Amino acid sequence: MSSTASQVIRCKAAVAWESGKPLVIQEVEVAPPQASEVRLKILFTSLCHTDVYFWEAKGQNPLFPRIYGHEAGGIVESVGECVTELKPGDHVLPVFTGECMDCAHCKSEESNMCDLLRVNTDRGVMLNDEKTRFSINGKPIYHFVGTSTFSEYTVVHAGCVAKINPLASLDKVCVLSCGISTGLGATLNVAKPPKGSTVAVFGLGAVGLAAAEGARIAGASRIIGVDINSNRFEGAKKFGVTEFVNPKDYKKPVQEVIAEITDGGVDRSIECTGNVDAMISAFECVHDGWGVAVLVGVPHKDAVFKTHPINLLNERTLKGTFFGNYKPRSDLPSVVEKYMSKELELEKFITHSVPFSEINKAFEYMLKGEGLRCIIRME
Amino acid sequence: MSSTASQVIRCKAAVAWESGKPLVIQEVEVAPPQASEVRLKILFTSLCHTDVYFWEAKGQNPLFPRIYGHEAGGIVESVGECVTELKPGDHVLPVFTGECMDCAHCKSEESNMCDLLRVNTDRGVMLNDEKTRFSINGKPIYHFVGTSTFSEYTVVHAGCVAKINPLASLDKVCVLSCGISTGLGATLNVAKPPKGSTVAVFGLGAVGLAAAEGARIAGASRIIGVDINSNRFEGAKKFGVTEFVNPKDYKKPVQEVIAEITDGGVDRSIECTGNVDAMISAFECVHDGWGVAVLVGVPHKDAVFKTHPINLLNERTLKGTFFGNYKPRSDLPSVVEKYMSKELELEKFITHSVPFSEINKAFEYMLKGEGLRCIIRME
Ligand SMILES: NC(=O)c1ccc[n+]([C@@H]2O[C@H](COP(=O)([O-])OP(=O)(O)OC[C@H]3O[C@@H](n4cnc5c(N)ncnc54)[C@H](O)[C@@H]3O)[C@@H](O)[C@H]2O)c1
Ligand SMILES: NC(=O)c1ccc[n+]([C@@H]2O[C@H](COP(=O)([O-])OP(=O)(O)OC[C@H]3O[C@@H](n4cnc5c(N)ncnc54)[C@H](O)[C@@H]3O)[C@@H](O)[C@H]2O)c1
Ligand SMILES: [Zn+2]
Ligand SMILES: [Zn+2]
Ligand SMILES: [Zn+2]
Ligand SMILES: [Zn+2]
Repeated sequence: MSSTASQVIRCKAAVAWESGKPLVIQEVEVAPPQASEVRLKILFTSLCHTDVYFWEAKGQNPLFPRIYGHEAGGIVESVGECVTELKPGDHVLPVFTGECMDCAHCKSEESNMCDLLRVNTDRGVMLNDEKTRFSINGKPIYHFVGTSTFSEYTVVHAGCVAKINPLASLDKVCVLSCGISTGLGATLNVAKPPKGSTVAVFGLGAVGLAAAEGARIAGASRIIGVDINSNRFEGAKKFGVTEFVNPKDYKKPVQEVIAEITDGGVDRSIECTGNVDAMISAFECVHDGWGVAVLVGVPHKDAVFKTHPINLLNERTLKGTFFGNYKPRSDLPSVVEKYMSKELELEKFITHSVPFSEINKAFEYMLKGEGLRCIIRME
Repeated sequence: MSSTASQVIRCKAAVAWESGKPLVIQEVEVAPPQASEVRLKILFTSLCHTDVYFWEAKGQNPLFPRIYGHEAGGIVESVGECVTELKPGDHVLPVFTGECMDCAHCKSEESNMCDLLRVNTDRGVMLNDEKTRFSINGKPIYHFVGTSTFSEYTVVHAGCVAKINPLASLDKVCVLSCGISTGLGATLNVAKPPKGSTVAVFGLGAVGLAAAEGARIAGASRIIGVDINSNRFEGAKKFGVTEFVNPKDYKKPVQEVIAEITDGGVDRSIECTGNVDAMISAFECVHDGWGVAVLVGVPHKDAVFKTHPINLLNERTLKGTFFGNYKPRSDLPSVVEKYMSKELELEKFITHSVPFSEINKAFEYMLKGEGLRCIIRME
């Protein structure tokens, strides 16, 4: 037992007080974990686009003051009642979507969309008592997707915590909490490209590059990167991308361009843009007879996916995935092992690193579209 | 060698001279098979909706005079050059889509959409010389989907002929040439419902009932039949359908009705209507996390499939199939064996039978929506 167990911890957190305004590093109080909760000491966290979207709060329900952050690595400080699978000192990755192990989804071999702990971006409180564990002078500070890792300590539902190999460097594997696993799993768990196949990846941000990395690991022989920003191309070569197509360079739809260079279409495509037109192109560019397209990007709420049904009848498959179909507690430890065995390279996703005091710089890099992942060092 | 080999055969055929006008039974000349072709003696043929659509020629390119028919069973009369896998006397099912065994589709384990012999409803001639093998006093009579089984003898590409167990009754297994295999394969090869799962079938015509039969064989515990024609319900019970929903009985979309009675959606759904709204409902009624929807119906050429991408991201899968993903030559023999072993019941699909001279009655039954399959006896 740590000396802080059952005590309120006072520590530093980066608090967002208003949409789009720099975070303020200040002291917060972190209550002890309740039943089925754990309190984590965060060592490293990184910034994902989803944090930025909700901090900008354009088109989302604004909920402030709030502590963002959901890609992180840390150590269990203390556990609440009924928590049997985690103990103080365990190395863990908190995850924005959980695994209760008990619902129909958790029991299904196919789904990772836990009924109880599925991501909820609108909720700012804990499930147990609908209250926050963060406060400043008694004023509650809201949680974000159940993780709120932009804080030295945070409280998380035990079902949203993956226990991992303590030998894994947390400053690297922290990026597996969200985007990298999402792209990697979209390829390895959902698209499943056969060895030697041709794969198209739409969108070459961190998620798309992780999807390309998955295609490389699966042994794809051609990996076609599609992005409307040609600046992405040079860096993408490190992730196994062998060819590039910028839809803006052509008058005809990009699915036709791809069909021409691939003798009828790619074997697999993975869409990682969030743009619905890219989703349609990603579907229509797969080969008839066997092609599989996987949607990953989160679309605008009014977006409509449209296609002629004959594109489906011609034996194409269309799927979507959430967190790369990984079950966070059951599957993440083995993804960490892929990194440990050097099958999966994480270093190349990490382009920046800042101390916690400079967290707002990470936001600036992302807003400028500079680099892929910026690690924020808590100590 | 039969005595007729290499000779022109004069026999009876049912010739369609004009769209929507009764077929005329008359004598035609059937030329000998050329290289890679076989000439078949048809013993039994049945009528499928596709014959009727193209005979009505509404919105299709009219091509007359033509001999329709594509569900049939017969015996090889003679073979052309280079035909090594078939010989006179073999019992066979001609199929509207072929298998060259050589193209990328034929070599793929997943596809049955042969590049060379894929169905082509616009072509009325043979591939070899772009000419017909049927004529009347020198005037060519067009073929239909490469089969033209409404004739005592017909010439077919050898790649469109499945050689089957000679002990199988051709008056029963002839229905496996098209609709029944399509529905059955859509379930068994594509939707693949796990044992004990819940399956929705949209459209309870012959194809949909064959899909239901597939669900029964797969061990589905609930099979929900959806049709806008409630007259279909009583008969569908014989095919394992356990519950019925008529979308017209509800104000809300049928996908919501189904979600309510299935605690969130069905595990699998198979659309066999050709109506694009039914396709959308069939997709949206599958459970998130693991649901799979399979489209079978042939849509209007201007139809657009529309859905919110979040329905895909929530881990639903959408597929389409052509001829139930069966490869005609490689796979149909084993479907015939399923019938021989009584695993698959075909008798219940056969609701009518007429001699060849009364073939126009089969058209009347279909136009009235009476029954499922009408067998036409050639002798
Ligand atoms: N499903 C999940 O569980 C999950 C998890 C994390 C992220 N995401 C989503 O994945 C998507 C990608 O995330 P990211 O962090 O890599 O984003 P990013 O913004 O870093 O990268 C997106 C890339 O897509 C490109 N792009 C945009 N529109 C395009 C178009 N029409 N055609 C081709 N390229 C286009 C952009 O130029 C950019 O390079 C986002 O929509 C994000 O919300 C989903
Ligand atoms: N993909 C293939 O290889 C293949 C092969 C054969 C047939 N087909 C297609 O399969 C479909 C079914 O063929 P069939 O012979 O069984 O046809 P059918 O006309 O006998 O049966 C169709 C049924 O669908 C019902 N229906 C129509 N609209 C509906 C709606 N909106 N909601 C619910 N039910 C609706 C009708 O009432 C009817 O009972 C057709 O579109 C046909 O062209 C496809
Ligand atoms: Zn669960
Ligand atoms: Zn994220
Ligand atoms: Zn072929
Ligand atoms: Zn047919």
